[in-house]
Parts: sequence; C-alpha cells; structure tokens
Amino acid sequence: MSCKKIGHTVRFDAPPVIRSSAAIAGKKEGDGPLGDRFDQIEPDAWFGQKTWEQAESAMLRRSLDLACEKAATTPGAVDYLLSGDLQNQCAGAAYALRDAGAPYFGLYGACSTMAEALTLGAMLIAGGYAETCAALTGSHYCTAERQYRFPLSYGCVRTPTAQWTVTGAGAFLLGKSGPGPRITAVTTGVIVDAGIKDMSNMGAAMAPAAYNTLRQHFMDTGRTPEYYDRIITGDLGHIGHAAVRELFRRDGAELDERYDDCGRMVYDRERQDVHGGGSGAGCSAVVLAGHLMREFQEGKLRRLLFAATGALMSPTASMQGQSIPGICHAVSIERAETV
Amino acid sequence: MSCKKIGHTVRFDAPPVIRSSAAIAGKKEGDGPLGDRFDQIEPDAWFGQKTWEQAESAMLRRSLDLACEKAATTPGAVDYLLSGDLQNQCAGAAYALRDAGAPYFGLYGACSTMAEALTLGAMLIAGGYAETCAALTGSHYCTAERQYRFPLSYGCVRTPTAQWTVTGAGAFLLGKSGPGPRITAVTTGVIVDAGIKDMSNMGAAMAPAAYNTLRQHFMDTGRTPEYYDRIITGDLGHIGHAAVRELFRRDGAELDERYDDCGRMVYDRERQDVHGGGSGAGCSAVVLAGHLMREFQEGKLRRLLFAATGALMSPTASMQGQSIPGICHAVSIERAETV
Repeated sequence: MSCKKIGHTVRFDAPPVIRSSAAIAGKKEGDGPLGDRFDQIEPDAWFGQKTWEQAESAMLRRSLDLACEKAATTPGAVDYLLSGDLQNQCAGAAYALRDAGAPYFGLYGACSTMAEALTLGAMLIAGGYAETCAALTGSHYCTAERQYRFPLSYGCVRTPTAQWTVTGAGAFLLGKSGPGPRITAVTTGVIVDAGIKDMSNMGAAMAPAAYNTLRQHFMDTGRTPEYYDRIITGDLGHIGHAAVRELFRRDGAELDERYDDCGRMVYDRERQDVHGGGSGAGCSAVVLAGHLMREFQEGKLRRLLFAATGALMSPTASMQGQSIPGICHAVSIERAETV
Repeated sequence: MSCKKIGHTVRFDAPPVIRSSAAIAGKKEGDGPLGDRFDQIEPDAWFGQKTWEQAESAMLRRSLDLACEKAATTPGAVDYLLSGDLQNQCAGAAYALRDAGAPYFGLYGACSTMAEALTLGAMLIAGGYAETCAALTGSHYCTAERQYRFPLSYGCVRTPTAQWTVTGAGAFLLGKSGPGPRITAVTTGVIVDAGIKDMSNMGAAMAPAAYNTLRQHFMDTGRTPEYYDRIITGDLGHIGHAAVRELFRRDGAELDERYDDCGRMVYDRERQDVHGGGSGAGCSAVVLAGHLMREFQEGKLRRLLFAATGALMSPTASMQGQSIPGICHAVSIERAETV
C-alpha cells in the first residue's frame, strides 16, 4: 500500500510534489489585494477571443501552458490532465484541452474542482499510475453571470449576499519528487445539503459542507487546527467564512486568524464592490496557485490545509425549488522538511 | 507499484472486481431488444417525481441502491462514489447522491462517464485507497431533449443522423476480490476533435476518438482485436459504428462481428424509430450493467473491451460555431480465470 486510509482521509507514504503552479487572473482580480501574487493579469476580458466562453478556455489553457513551462515540460507529456469548470458540460475545460494530446479526466466539483483535481492527481501519482499530472480549473465572470444568473447587459442589482465570480485560472503540475511543497493528505467530501435554497447565498449553502470536511480531516488525522499555519476554505466568502468559524465555536474549537477563505482574500471588501466576496472555481484556484504557493516559496507558509468548496446545484434545480447541495474537499499541503 | 503503465494504458497487477451491477431502464428501452436484460423497467417517465430532472436523480439513485443491495452493502459504506451525468452542472448525480453519506468525486465525461467512473474506481481500489467504489451514471430522454435540443412539446422533426437519448441508469460496485469479472486494464482517452460541427451527428463526431483510444489500447497492450470476445463502443450509434469499422479497415484491421456499439444494441432499428441509434450516458451504462454483465454470468463472455464515448461540446459552444470534441475511455473486463 502506498498510503494510509483512515475514515475519509488518505495519507500518502510518498507524498506527491507540486512541481509548479500558474495563476492567470483578470483585471478586477489584478486590482485586488493579491494583484501582485498572480503570474499574469490579463486586462482584456475577451483574452483575444470572440466569445467569453472561448476566452475562459484560452485563459485556462494559458495557465496549463505556463505551469508546464515552469516545470520544463509540455501538456502532451503529462500522464493525466484533470480539469473541469463551471460552464455547462464543462466546455471551458474541454475546449481548452482539446488539442493538449494527453489523457483527460473531466471533473465536475463546481467551485471545489481545484481540490478535487489535486486530490485525484495526487492519488494517481502516489498510486503509481502517473509520473506527472496536471490539475487545473478556472472561471470567468462574464460566462458565469449569463449562465447562472442574468445577462450582464440587464444590469441587474445584486443582493447583499451575492458573490462575484472570479475571472481567473490556476494550474498545477504534480510529480513524484522535487523541492516543492507536497500533498501529504487528502480528505474527500461527502455531499451536505443544509436545505438552503437562495442561489444568491452560496456561502451559507456551502459552509456546512466545509465544516463537515474540516472536522472529518481533524478527526481522521488526529490533528488540531493548530497543526496548520493556515486553513483556507474557498469560496465561502464573508458569510460562509463566518458560518464555519461559528460552527467550530459551537464545538468548542477556535479557528482564529489562521483561518481565512479565498472568497474573502481575492477582493478588497471596502474598495471593490463585491458584496459577499469572490466565488467561482477560479477563485480558490488563483489564490492557491498564485498567492499561497508564493507564501510557500517565501518561507512564510509551511503547513496549509486547502479546502475548496462547491455548490452542486444547477439553475434548473433551483428554479424547481430544490435546495443547494454543497461539497468540500480538503488537501493538506506541506513543505518538504515538515513532512 | 500496483500496476504496469504503458502509453495511455494501466494494467492492474491485482485487478479490481465488479462485485455487482444494476441497470434501471425506461419504457422504450424495456421495449427494445435488451428489454429482458435490465434489472428494472420503469413505465413511469417521472419515476414518481415532480420533474424530469428529479426523475433522473431518482432513477440514478435506484441503480446505486440496487447495486449495493446485491453486494450486501449500503451507499454510505462505500469508500468513494464516482458519478456524473448530462444535466447542466451534473445535477442529476448531485441530487441523487446528496444524502448518500460517502465521499463523492463528481465526473464529467458526457456519454463516456460510465467508462471514466469505472477507470477511476478501479484505480482507487488497486492503488490501495479504497475497499469498495461505486461507479454510476445515467441519462433521461426528457431532460436531455429539452436541455440539448428543443422542448419536447415543440414536436420537432429529428434529422436522420440524430440519436435518441436513453432513459436509463447503470451502477457498479467495485471491490478488491470476489468471483465477478475483473477490470484488468484501462486506457484513458485524449480529446480528439475532428472538426465536425453537426450537433445532430454525434456518432460521427465521436468516432475518431473511439478509433484513437482503441488503437492506443491495442498498441499499449500488444493485443489484437481477436483477444476480445466483444469490443463494444458506446454510444456511437449506427453512423459512428460504421465509421470506426472503416477507420480500422484503412489500417488493414478487421473488427468483424465481435465489434458492436451500445447505441446500436439498445433499440430495434426497424421497429423503434430512433434514427441514428441510442445515446446518452445511460446508454452504455445500462447495456454494460444489464446485458453485458449478464453475458459474463451466463458464460457467454470472457473478455470484453468496453469503450464508452463522449461528445464534450455544449449547446452554447455549438451555437458559437465550435466543432465537437470527442473522447473515449476503454476498460478491459475479463472473467477471473482468463486473467
């Protein structure tokens, strides 16, 4: 066996390594507090394409190409590509990778896709199935708004709890060895549906799933929150983040300032008008691939619990009166010497 | 290492076992040539629900519950659930499994999802991450028509190449050991886009991907088509099936009568008016989980190459003039004594 499995958590005997990462972000994200923590800021929302959907694919592909370049490889030389996105039929990923030339596993985890892809990529490497895997996802404000909510040209007023879909893509190249941070453990989430039906309050809908997976992770590993320098969920935003903190308090556990959320980190709450915070599969992808990976490089971060969250509803299901199922996958990322 | 990896193919040293399978089909599928080869035929297209989308989820869940029952287990006791479907945001699977209580990996492989789920499930078991995995998918004619094409109430005339989405769900329970057929090898597909733009001719769009993955499988394993009793693609339908046969002929290889396609097998071409044949993620799922698994039990089948195909387009991408990317994943399933 190449791992220890306890509960819903796998701990790798030979933890896969993050060989490289790349974060491509849009203009608004570049204007935010993490603006200097991404590899590229693209001022053109069209990314040189004719439609926003193609723009999203171009952005996603650019993140893969850059992550491969940093690891001195090419997409076609990767053993498995793991990707998905928020577009219907995950078309953003399919069109981004249609000429990549490597075996492809399409994933759908909504905004939890970054963690799902890292989890499966790490499992494929540690299981001996792959030397290298690429894990990538992204989202685009303009494609998401018109697909999930309203055409942008309507100029709709957003509710105070609504989150702003990040235009951004993050890609990771995972391998067997190297100096980069390692994926030491993964806790795979169960679907949790707390009965919330408000499509404009995704943070509240996903918070119970985040709480559930984090609690499971601590139980399975015997670790406490203090084990980690940072615990970063995403994309719960301000409301979901407060809810997770409160849920742990009820258990007598204090997550304190080590706990933050990608949806809170990516935009300036005062200066940028985003109400509930950032969201979208690209939100946690760029915060991890850009900002947090730089914190590892800078020696500011040694142990990170990254717990991306997803709302598994569809507009059709919500319009039919269904509540919103949430999911959260946690990935433990640690500097080599701490493993 | 728990496997041999050659090219895009993994061969398992300890092949995971199919402990059980369940196939739930709709009325039209029950009236077809494989009608007595499914576990249940549901005459009510609503599956007792208020919407077709919820009907699809109820059907999918019923297939999981039945597969678990046959293996004397429950969904909550499974290590990983692997599922996805054709509904936007894969909502069919999410709502089917929202109270299943087991870790969930959401997949999107369009109509290739059955093979993708079996592939990853087998890898998770052989890699030591799981004792049991459930792999399931399905599709519903009524949800697919209104989402991908036109509202049923329009009564649109279908083109001669159009395929008919199967109402059906198939579920598999995979484990480490037992008397059932084993997943001995998996060949994971790359995305192939042959430039076809006709959304009513999916078979032609997916055929190059099927050809590519089958050829890769034979190359990686050193096997010839004669190694297998049956080679079953799906859901290429009549047009795609003929195209794959012709593509192999150009290479001087004859697939002969061992080669068929789930989209051809599920409906009676003369008696049931389905034009290009069956399609949908549920098509290959019910043909494999119902008919082909029974052929194993009956001793008629010893070695099967199951190669589910998917068209990774979206209606939005097609309306924007994009061609249709295809994918195909091949799963080698063999009786224990032949391994």
